[in-house]
Amino acid sequence: MSEHPQKRHVIVAGIGFAGLACARELADHPDLLVTVVDRTNHHLFQPLLYQVAIAGLEAPEIAEPARALLRKHRNIRFRMGAVQSVDLERRIVDVDGYRMRYDYLVVATGSTTAHFNIPGIAEHAFEMKTLDQALAIRDQILSACEAATRAKDPARRQALLTFVVVGGGATGVELTGALAELRLHVLRHDYPEIDAGEFRVVMVESTSYPLAPMGEKLGRYTDRTLTRDFEVDVRSDTRVTEVRADGVITNHGEHIRAYTVIWTAGVVGAGFAGLPEPAGGGRVATDAALSLPGHPDVFIVGDLNGVLDPQTGEPYPQLGQTAVQQGRRAGRNIVRDLENRPRQPFAYDDKGVLVTIGRNRGVADVAGLQFTGFPAWIAWLAIHLMLLVGFRNRLLVLTSWIYNYVTYDFAVRILRNVRTFPDDEQ
Amino acid sequence: MSEHPQKRHVIVAGIGFAGLACARELADHPDLLVTVVDRTNHHLFQPLLYQVAIAGLEAPEIAEPARALLRKHRNIRFRMGAVQSVDLERRIVDVDGYRMRYDYLVVATGSTTAHFNIPGIAEHAFEMKTLDQALAIRDQILSACEAATRAKDPARRQALLTFVVVGGGATGVELTGALAELRLHVLRHDYPEIDAGEFRVVMVESTSYPLAPMGEKLGRYTDRTLTRDFEVDVRSDTRVTEVRADGVITNHGEHIRAYTVIWTAGVVGAGFAGLPEPAGGGRVATDAALSLPGHPDVFIVGDLNGVLDPQTGEPYPQLGQTAVQQGRRAGRNIVRDLENRPRQPFAYDDKGVLVTIGRNRGVADVAGLQFTGFPAWIAWLAIHLMLLVGFRNRLLVLTSWIYNYVTYDFAVRILRNVRTFPDDEQ
Repeated sequence: MSEHPQKRHVIVAGIGFAGLACARELADHPDLLVTVVDRTNHHLFQPLLYQVAIAGLEAPEIAEPARALLRKHRNIRFRMGAVQSVDLERRIVDVDGYRMRYDYLVVATGSTTAHFNIPGIAEHAFEMKTLDQALAIRDQILSACEAATRAKDPARRQALLTFVVVGGGATGVELTGALAELRLHVLRHDYPEIDAGEFRVVMVESTSYPLAPMGEKLGRYTDRTLTRDFEVDVRSDTRVTEVRADGVITNHGEHIRAYTVIWTAGVVGAGFAGLPEPAGGGRVATDAALSLPGHPDVFIVGDLNGVLDPQTGEPYPQLGQTAVQQGRRAGRNIVRDLENRPRQPFAYDDKGVLVTIGRNRGVADVAGLQFTGFPAWIAWLAIHLMLLVGFRNRLLVLTSWIYNYVTYDFAVRILRNVRTFPDDEQ
Repeated sequence: MSEHPQKRHVIVAGIGFAGLACARELADHPDLLVTVVDRTNHHLFQPLLYQVAIAGLEAPEIAEPARALLRKHRNIRFRMGAVQSVDLERRIVDVDGYRMRYDYLVVATGSTTAHFNIPGIAEHAFEMKTLDQALAIRDQILSACEAATRAKDPARRQALLTFVVVGGGATGVELTGALAELRLHVLRHDYPEIDAGEFRVVMVESTSYPLAPMGEKLGRYTDRTLTRDFEVDVRSDTRVTEVRADGVITNHGEHIRAYTVIWTAGVVGAGFAGLPEPAGGGRVATDAALSLPGHPDVFIVGDLNGVLDPQTGEPYPQLGQTAVQQGRRAGRNIVRDLENRPRQPFAYDDKGVLVTIGRNRGVADVAGLQFTGFPAWIAWLAIHLMLLVGFRNRLLVLTSWIYNYVTYDFAVRILRNVRTFPDDEQ
C-alpha cells in the first residue's frame, strides 16, 4: 500500500460471519486500508444452506456478492483468492502466489467438515459447507429419484431412494427434517411411479438423542418429532465406521445401503500454512483479546479460534453468533490500538440456540427458557430473516418461505448436473 | 403400456416449447397415455436464458420442473433421459438403453448451436442453449473480472476484460446489450481497480447491420443504440474464421484478443439416430400435417422441423411461437386421428418479433408495424412476462426486473465454479 504510507493495512482472510463483522468495524476508518480476501466471491448465510440443498431456496437468496457488500466503503477492497500461507515474522500473506504485506491480519477462514479418520468420507459422502456442495446435494437427490424410476433391480432402487444424514447436531437435524418434508410433500407427488414407503430418510447419531448439547428434554422432543411426524428412521447411539459407494457401515456391523450419504458430524478449523499448530478440533489458541500469543498483529476469529471460555474451560461453540462477536471484537481491538487504548478481552454473549425441525416444529433454548413446537419454529423463522444480510435477501427468502409453506411445493427443484450412481445400467 | 391395452401410447421427445404445447393438447385425453422424455428435468424459457448468463435472473425463474408442470395430468408421465435412437418400422425408441414402444412419436428435440465447420468453437467458445451453458458464461464473466484484478501483464488483462459475442441475431443482440449494461452499471462499481474503458464488449456479425431479417430501419437503429448508448464495439460485415483460446480470427485477418467468446451465430436441428436424413440446417422434412412421409405416426415439431412454408418457399423461422404452434398442431392431429377426422395442415400465425437491446431500448415488428425505443422495450417486457410458464415465475421475474431496473444492480452475481484462463500465473 505504498500509495498511502501513513495508513495501516489490515488483511481480513475470509468473508464469513466473522470476517464480515470485522470488516464492518473497520469500514470508513480514516487510518486504515482493509483488504478482504475470500476464495469465493460471496458472503454465505450458512444457517440456511441446507434449504438450498433440498431445493427450498435458491443460491442468491442466501449469498450476497462480496463486492456488493463492501463497495460502499472506500477504504475496503476485495480480492478473490485463497490464502496459501503467512510469514508471521515478515508480515506477508501469499494469496494464490500474490504476496501482500499487512500491519494487521485477521484470520476468519472458518472450518471444514471433520472426518475423524473414518474411511470413505472424502470419496463417497457429501459435505455441506459451501454453495457448491449444497447444489451438488440437490442434484444428487433429484438425479437419484429420476434414476430410481428407471431402476429394475430392487436393491439398486432401494439404495437410490435411501438418504442417510450422519450427525444429530443442528445442521443434521435441520437437513433431516427438510429432507423428510421434501419426501412427504414434493417427491411423493412428483414421482407417482415410486411408492411413498420407498423413500427413506435415515439419521445416524452417536448420542442417545439428537441435539444432545441442548439437553434431554429438547433432544427427546426432536427425536419423537422426526420419528413420528416426519417418518425418519433415527438411529441413536450409532456411529458410522466406514462410508462406501453403496452406503454406510455402523459400529453395530450393519450396512445401511444408500447412494446418498451426507456428512454433518462435526467440523474442524481451517487455517493455512504458517499459523501456529492447532490444538483440539484444529482450532488455534489465542489470548483473551483474540490475537496470537507473541503476534499481537494477528487475530484469529470464528470457528478457527480455540481460546477457552474462562467460564466453562471449553472453547466457544462454533456458531454464527460467536463468529460475529469475535469478528467485531477483533475489529474493535484494532481500532483501540490506533487510539492507544488497551484491548478488551472477548466476552461471549450467548443469545441461545434455535433449531427448526420442519414445518411448524422447532426447539429453542433462549435466555434460559426452553420451548418447542410452533413457537420455536416461528422464533426460528423470525430470527433467521432478521440475521440475513440485505433487505433484498430477506424479502426473497420470506417470499419463498411463504410460497413453500402455502403450496407445499419447492419450486427450485431444477436439476443442473445429472449425477451417476455406482451400478448405472448404461 | 400393457396395463392399458386399449389406450394409445404417445411419446413426446423434448419438453421445450413444442413438446410442452403438444403434451398439453393431449392432456387428460381418455384414450391416450403420454410419456414425455427430456434429457433435463425442466422446461426452459429460452428467450430469457441470456439474462441468466449475465446474472440478471436466477435459473429457477426461467425454468419449471417438468414433473411440476405435468403431474396434474393423470395420463402423462415424465421420464428423464436422452432419446438415443428410434426404430421407425418396429415403433420403438431407445432412451438411454431403456426401450419403449409407441403408437405415436412426437419429436420435439429442438436445435443445437451451428458450428459451420469453423475450427475452435467446441473447444474455446461458449454456447448458450442450456441452463448449464448460461451458468458457465456467468461464472466465466465473474471469474475473468476477478482474475483481471490480479493480472499484471497488460495483454492478459485486456484478453480477460474483452467479451466477444459472435452473431447479430436476436440472441446475439440481447446478450450483447445485457453484457454492456452489466459493464456500465455493475462491473464498473464492483471493480474500482479496473478502469471503465478496460471492459470491452465486441459484437461480430456477418451482415451489414444487426437483426438483418428485420430490415434496414430496425437494424440500423439497433447498430446505433449498441454503439452509441451502450458503448459496444460492433463489427459488421465480419465473419469469424477461427476461435482460439485467446480470441477470434476474422476474415479480415484480425485477431481480437479475448478469453470469453460466446457463439450465438445460428442453430442446427438436433435429432437422433433412426430419423430420416436431415435437409438444410439439419432440419427434417415433413408433410404439411407435420408428420414424416411414409410414417404418419411420427411428427417432427419445432426447430427440427424442415417443412417449407408454402407462402415463402422457406422453412419456418426457428422461434418459440413456431414451436408452440407446431406442437399444438401435432397434438391436435393425433386427437383428430382418434376421432377419425382428417388431419389439418400446419398454418403459421406470425405474431411478429420483439427484441430488447437493453434498458428502455428495443425494436419491434408486430402486425406490420415497426417501432423502436421505449415502446418496443415495454412491449417486449409485457409479452415475455405473459409467455413465461407459471404464475410464480412471472411474479419472480417481474420482481427481479423491477429490482434490477430501479437499483441498476444485478444481485445474482454469485460465482459458483471459478474458471481458469489460458495463461494463469499460478
